[in-house]
Amino acid sequence: MKIPEILIIESAHKPGSLGKILTVIGEAGIVVEHLNAVRREQDQTIWEITLEMDPETDGGVIDQINALPNAKIIGRSDRIMDRHRDGKIRMVSRVPIGSIQQLRDIYTPGVARVSLAIQADPVLQWEYTALRHTVAIVTNGTAVLGLGDVGVAAALPVMEGKSALFAQLAKISGIPILIDEKDPERLIDTICAIAPSFGAIQLEDIAAPLCFEVEEGLKARLDRPVMHDDQHGTAVVTLAALINATARVDVDLRDSVVGQIGLGAAGIGIARLLRSYGVKRVLGADIHPHAIERLERFGGEGRSLDALMAEADIVIATTGVPGLIKPEKVRPGQIILALSNPEPEIAPRRALQQGAIFAADGGSVNNALGFPGLFRGALEARATQFTDEMLFAAANALAELTPTDALVPNVLDLEVHAKVAEAVKEAALGLGSRGTLRLSI
Amino acid sequence: MKIPEILIIESAHKPGSLGKILTVIGEAGIVVEHLNAVRREQDQTIWEITLEMDPETDGGVIDQINALPNAKIIGRSDRIMDRHRDGKIRMVSRVPIGSIQQLRDIYTPGVARVSLAIQADPVLQWEYTALRHTVAIVTNGTAVLGLGDVGVAAALPVMEGKSALFAQLAKISGIPILIDEKDPERLIDTICAIAPSFGAIQLEDIAAPLCFEVEEGLKARLDRPVMHDDQHGTAVVTLAALINATARVDVDLRDSVVGQIGLGAAGIGIARLLRSYGVKRVLGADIHPHAIERLERFGGEGRSLDALMAEADIVIATTGVPGLIKPEKVRPGQIILALSNPEPEIAPRRALQQGAIFAADGGSVNNALGFPGLFRGALEARATQFTDEMLFAAANALAELTPTDALVPNVLDLEVHAKVAEAVKEAALGLGSRGTLRLSI
Repeated sequence: MKIPEILIIESAHKPGSLGKILTVIGEAGIVVEHLNAVRREQDQTIWEITLEMDPETDGGVIDQINALPNAKIIGRSDRIMDRHRDGKIRMVSRVPIGSIQQLRDIYTPGVARVSLAIQADPVLQWEYTALRHTVAIVTNGTAVLGLGDVGVAAALPVMEGKSALFAQLAKISGIPILIDEKDPERLIDTICAIAPSFGAIQLEDIAAPLCFEVEEGLKARLDRPVMHDDQHGTAVVTLAALINATARVDVDLRDSVVGQIGLGAAGIGIARLLRSYGVKRVLGADIHPHAIERLERFGGEGRSLDALMAEADIVIATTGVPGLIKPEKVRPGQIILALSNPEPEIAPRRALQQGAIFAADGGSVNNALGFPGLFRGALEARATQFTDEMLFAAANALAELTPTDALVPNVLDLEVHAKVAEAVKEAALGLGSRGTLRLSI
Repeated sequence: MKIPEILIIESAHKPGSLGKILTVIGEAGIVVEHLNAVRREQDQTIWEITLEMDPETDGGVIDQINALPNAKIIGRSDRIMDRHRDGKIRMVSRVPIGSIQQLRDIYTPGVARVSLAIQADPVLQWEYTALRHTVAIVTNGTAVLGLGDVGVAAALPVMEGKSALFAQLAKISGIPILIDEKDPERLIDTICAIAPSFGAIQLEDIAAPLCFEVEEGLKARLDRPVMHDDQHGTAVVTLAALINATARVDVDLRDSVVGQIGLGAAGIGIARLLRSYGVKRVLGADIHPHAIERLERFGGEGRSLDALMAEADIVIATTGVPGLIKPEKVRPGQIILALSNPEPEIAPRRALQQGAIFAADGGSVNNALGFPGLFRGALEARATQFTDEMLFAAANALAELTPTDALVPNVLDLEVHAKVAEAVKEAALGLGSRGTLRLSI
């Protein structure tokens, strides 16, 4: 997996010296993510260059840069580590505690009045506590980013990142909950035991097929919204991108044959949501037989990779395997979304060369577009579960809010998240348009 | 139990009209907690009067005030409920997320670097996540304030209050965790299962004797600090008050016979800590035989209430029973701390009349003086448990920081909490003075 590496490079202030550095980097097959002139010293410039590197295989480029006549690596920045120091989130008080009177109002004895009110009428807990903007972010650390089973301690920075995004994008308190457990029943029992603490539950980075069993078990037992983001959050953003992509080339999404390559959490989530959205035929390819069986439960059809490529009008890939789609398998007129990050299953450029009518990679399909508004809307509606109507509402809102030169909106646009939340809330309250087909997971 | 009731009263702007209202309230046996002139209208003044009332028994005063010629209750303020609306706490991001670069640093792909670093060296989780300032506040809702077993939903406002105080007083993220469970093994299992999410565990408002079993079980299984605040937080603040009270009347605490009336969580916590502090004889009175047995485990001696009053030099009461200590049982020269709130087991004035050398009630012994600094210090030291040395260090710091006209410091003084944290940290790191006796709970 590629992760950012930030090099601090001193180069001669001469024409072409930066170009030579970037050429060496490019020839090593490494993408420059960001570049910044830190400062100028006499006849030298200090550059901070952020690269997407695989630390196991791309180390050689360091020596090659140092071998250049006018460049020297003088350090590696800890900017990313620095930004994580002491964690990324913090609980704050929403009430002032500057006087004894305020203290006595919000703590004992005043709080007793609120406790008694809730004891008498439990629905008041949604009005007089933080429940309605509090979501557990639960993981067992088994499928973290593209890193796999790194364990719960190593998963915590990712959960904190999710929490920071919840706070920034939707004013939701996301509480990282780490459970070092792979047995589905024990996972479900633990989450149910602590569920009264939260308005909703987001499952995160739990490996397939365990994630399916855990989500199903929780939905059956809990009366508050549960969502495995890797499945349904990803599916919502992908559906939005697909609505835009098909509209752009005037293809009917529901009448198209969609082929989903890779049936892990994301692939299953996408295939399921598309079927529920009304796509009549969804093919799926995966090396695991249990994944095909799961696809068939909601009317999908298993295929080999080659058969899928030969039959599908729209191809979506979420395998994490760079270059999996051979260019010669692409058929003229196909729509190709190769979503794996940071490297797609096929470069959009190559797919278009082979006659694809539309092609995109995963750079623009950002998960963080979905979950903040989805949870905010569900919580505001006091929904007891996520329905497909709510997921469709989010996807439609995202599609509508997309600028004409993009597949999805800007993830940092707070207005987008507010509108997604509003659409989800309306759908939850039954005011929005209804989907045509409802399928259980 | 008495809880605050806020009356909005219109009274004639004439001499004596406010006095008459307060006289009626006083004659009903109700204490005025706060009084505020909201506004003046022509010849009327609008008062906001906060009373400590028992809603079940004190309702008659309303009619009596309305019967006064120059006063009328025109409303009841929802100030306390208003301050609780939407909850008292909120998670925020500690990092800016204003650009795609920042997003990519703190979330994917940048966060992968931090995850890999922690996977390679798990101790880094304490440096690059919020663990070190995050504490679970766990309750099963069985002994909430003086309200008893009100359930977890009604306990949440209290846990949020604790969290708001953690944030305000010690910059700690306190995470309310509600577990609707009374079986000790299942409680312990659930807390252990989620423990990797938190730097430390605070147990809160869990009824005795379940609280003892749960705390013991957690301490045996977890490698991070666990503290039942009702026991040890209360004990620390009480010890501080006792150090000050005995110094003021020149009595040797360790050589005194201490009598603890009421051996619930608070009473057992106080008795245990005093024994560990070096008090040679601690007597205890409680109606439950299991409470006496627990007291005896660390060298305390069971007594009847009368026998205790006859033998003890220092009497501490934490029963929640107003007026339990009959004035005629007080002996000349005794120190009496009647700590139950809002009404003590004996009024200090009455105890002094009977010859007590020193007497105080619970108004000044505020729990919130202890836990913020205790947890901050333990977390900063990366302590794996709370030791009695840490509790003594907190009590000594509180005693030293107390103004001469008080028993304990001002709970809102941030400097106090910082110094308690520093003392606890030093004790945890072995730099502080050592207690003379160590007793397991």
